[in-house]
Amino acid sequence: MHIQSVNNPLIKDMTKLHQKKHRDATGLFLVEGYHLHEEATKVGNVVHVFTTDESIRGDNVVTVTPQVLAKLAQTKNPQPVITICRKIEGAAVGHRVLLLERVQDPGNLGTLMRSALAFGFDTIVLDNTCDIYNDKVLRSTQGAIFRLNVLHQSIATFMEEHSELTFYGTAMEGTPLDDIDPALRIGLILGNEGSGVSSEVLAKTTLNLTISMHHTESLNVAVAGSIIMHHLALK
Amino acid sequence: MHIQSVNNPLIKDMTKLHQKKHRDATGLFLVEGYHLHEEATKVGNVVHVFTTDESIRGDNVVTVTPQVLAKLAQTKNPQPVITICRKIEGAAVGHRVLLLERVQDPGNLGTLMRSALAFGFDTIVLDNTCDIYNDKVLRSTQGAIFRLNVLHQSIATFMEEHSELTFYGTAMEGTPLDDIDPALRIGLILGNEGSGVSSEVLAKTTLNLTISMHHTESLNVAVAGSIIMHHLALK
Repeated sequence: MHIQSVNNPLIKDMTKLHQKKHRDATGLFLVEGYHLHEEATKVGNVVHVFTTDESIRGDNVVTVTPQVLAKLAQTKNPQPVITICRKIEGAAVGHRVLLLERVQDPGNLGTLMRSALAFGFDTIVLDNTCDIYNDKVLRSTQGAIFRLNVLHQSIATFMEEHSELTFYGTAMEGTPLDDIDPALRIGLILGNEGSGVSSEVLAKTTLNLTISMHHTESLNVAVAGSIIMHHLALK
Repeated sequence: MHIQSVNNPLIKDMTKLHQKKHRDATGLFLVEGYHLHEEATKVGNVVHVFTTDESIRGDNVVTVTPQVLAKLAQTKNPQPVITICRKIEGAAVGHRVLLLERVQDPGNLGTLMRSALAFGFDTIVLDNTCDIYNDKVLRSTQGAIFRLNVLHQSIATFMEEHSELTFYGTAMEGTPLDDIDPALRIGLILGNEGSGVSSEVLAKTTLNLTISMHHTESLNVAVAGSIIMHHLALK
């Protein structure tokens, strides 16, 4: 298939996926670039591919003009391939779960997903975070989004439903990370960039962790979460 | 002092600090917001403060109109205080040095500086990185920039001049981080987001480190660097 007009109905529909409400309504999201196209293809959840690159072929590939590509893109100078994917959510929960409460920065959310995959966390629970299908999140994940189980749920409810997990919170004054001998099945909870994990959630955990630091510094939440996931990784 | 006109010569001069060449020529840089103003004030390297907030007082405080503030600002909705600071560079080198080769993303550079301070790294050597006085770097550092010794130098030259340090590189296939017993004085080298540390530099290190991961994943450079700095921190 070849599309030349920016007013083509399919192009107009797909451009709406820039908005969260249309992503929610359709269960679809849009990713840019060769790397994310390749990752999505491996997982097999590709619905359409729009490209000006004639070397990309397949049943669901639509060649388009540079004008159409520019309309679909969310960056100013996109790579010439835009992929429409179906969300994968709600698979089984494994031995390492990352729970995020009110994380607001797209870069932090994407970086945490990338680190989660690297350290064997298979499920992410999102409670009032920024939208995971936001284009900045997708760029930061480097494809991790295609291989993680994503749940949208309140952390309190998830904790009630998953008593088989040991839940660790993160707090300014908690048990030093280096003193922890990781439990068999873990849920790690990280909180908002400014205010951390809420006191309601911290009160329900088995224990709360702290990373030892010089001075009275703080760490970026994606950095802190990644250091803890590295320590808790299944060996 | 009070300035009402966006054409005031001082305002015009200070606005030029948005550009690297004027920061280089003057040794000054510009930071936005209450938090960075407070951090700069603690260190004592403040040259001018421009604000619409009359509760901020001092010899170097200039009250301005919202129009003047908007002209000085680099963000769309700035907090009402903009501080001009003098760069601090070239202090003594301590026991933990972070060396960055061609790190290009301002957020990564700022986050690495914040983590460096948290884990007792006192000096940062920058070799062909993005400009550290870029406003995105400054926002990510959360004030760390005022307390770190910053050197602009080639890593190869720094290594020759500092043989008292043990240099660790980072590589895809190196010694697992968890097997390292940290040396007394360390220089840790991180490289470009896409290509890592150059082979020329890796060939000169005492050893090269790897973080063990699941699958064949990679980590964001600020995350990887922070995990390693946490492991190497002076206890």
